[in-house]
Amino acid sequence: MATSTRSSKRQKTGADTAAEADDSMAYKLIYWPGIPGRGEHIRLAFEATGTPYVDVSNKTDAGVNAVMAQISEKNIGDDNNPPPLAPPILQHGDTLLSQTPNILAYLGPKLGLVPDVAEDSAGMYHVNALALTALDGLSNEPHDVHHPIASGAYYEEQKEEALKKAADYRAVRLPKFLSYFERVLSGPASGGGEWLYGGKMTYADLVLFQTLDGVTYAFPKCVGKLRSSGKYEKVFAHYERVKALDKIKSYLASNRRLKYSMGIYRHYPELDDE
Amino acid sequence: MATSTRSSKRQKTGADTAAEADDSMAYKLIYWPGIPGRGEHIRLAFEATGTPYVDVSNKTDAGVNAVMAQISEKNIGDDNNPPPLAPPILQHGDTLLSQTPNILAYLGPKLGLVPDVAEDSAGMYHVNALALTALDGLSNEPHDVHHPIASGAYYEEQKEEALKKAADYRAVRLPKFLSYFERVLSGPASGGGEWLYGGKMTYADLVLFQTLDGVTYAFPKCVGKLRSSGKYEKVFAHYERVKALDKIKSYLASNRRLKYSMGIYRHYPELDDE
Repeated sequence: MATSTRSSKRQKTGADTAAEADDSMAYKLIYWPGIPGRGEHIRLAFEATGTPYVDVSNKTDAGVNAVMAQISEKNIGDDNNPPPLAPPILQHGDTLLSQTPNILAYLGPKLGLVPDVAEDSAGMYHVNALALTALDGLSNEPHDVHHPIASGAYYEEQKEEALKKAADYRAVRLPKFLSYFERVLSGPASGGGEWLYGGKMTYADLVLFQTLDGVTYAFPKCVGKLRSSGKYEKVFAHYERVKALDKIKSYLASNRRLKYSMGIYRHYPELDDE
Repeated sequence: MATSTRSSKRQKTGADTAAEADDSMAYKLIYWPGIPGRGEHIRLAFEATGTPYVDVSNKTDAGVNAVMAQISEKNIGDDNNPPPLAPPILQHGDTLLSQTPNILAYLGPKLGLVPDVAEDSAGMYHVNALALTALDGLSNEPHDVHHPIASGAYYEEQKEEALKKAADYRAVRLPKFLSYFERVLSGPASGGGEWLYGGKMTYADLVLFQTLDGVTYAFPKCVGKLRSSGKYEKVFAHYERVKALDKIKSYLASNRRLKYSMGIYRHYPELDDE
């Protein structure tokens, strides 16, 4: 599946080879077209750092087939790579990686989105833990709210159970996670409370921004109440801080930022507060 | 919360200092006492490699208080460490890390449970992805089967929904994940199909072993049928391979291996096949 040029038999000029080498090392994101989804965390890492990338299914002719080929039950991977179970998938040269937090862990040092390992050897692991926690409570759980019984069945088939799970999510789980990140931003390891860890923006900040953005789309009334409660001031200030970053602001205003629809974050009014 | 000796004012001898330094750098696992749970993945990494560690809540006077202090809503962490949301927590010197796959990613290179980065720079990320996938489908989902609506409520309060989710898990999700790992073991990146990646045991193998062990405890009839279907021969051979490793075998026979009870993996006969 890799687009390596190793097997090309055409006689190459020096210029050709340089151009192809550049292309083969470009970052390629393979994710469902048309929705932000889990792929959005990878896009934000690239966008926040001004890193060129190819959004394969949205911006090339391969379209959704790029995803389907990877997750086919016939795909057993290649010499370098196990098969992925699901997108997002990052292709970087001959390497194919899956699992959102794993792709972010790979990109973190390359894009300057984790502390320098020479200065803070545990920093990248703290960032990873924060990202995993945001993904657990503000991405995986909100997905399960609208699909509590069977991820492969329709919402309408499990709406009754979704109503119950949504009530628990709004009353218990969402406040728990917001309260946790409020504590993280209040703690000394945040380095002042502007960013989650070490006084600088990391990919954990981007993940918290994106997950809170998605939860706000899904549960606007509930999040509005929690925000105006004043209990999570640092969390919402952090959200606005990320949103106001020049590169993020431009990205959010561009057509590269896809609209929420029927992905992880869904707005069903009956699952929100009244 | 760290047990660093930096603030000690007592006059030290050389021997004292060496002993304390050793102690402060020992690996300490902070997890709920009495159940294997997510802490088991950390225990297995230590046990499989013969690495000394302290199972704080099971083997020291601190008991469950070691967990409670960490996850207290008053804990904002310290200069080096954000607060953890939940155990397992690894303490290593002044570093405190949470999130199961994150602790494993930290331990992997230290315990020789990932490929050498100089030989295979992407290897540790492939291992991380495989571990994340096993944890998703064979640990988080089985937990949600008995708690589909509210993780903080009793099983009995959500039994009706659990029966529905269990039916989907047994018929759709569990076969999907077993089939995935069968493909991984069939692929060239496994390096022969004995281990998940690169022809050597990594922590992903230990995670797959432990999650399949837990799923087998929870759904013995269903797993028995899937096993005898012959569709997942490589997965079950892999399970037996890990189980037969000398150090794992000794560990499983020891009193350090805790019994499943009311943790992630629960055996409710009504949630299993008939």
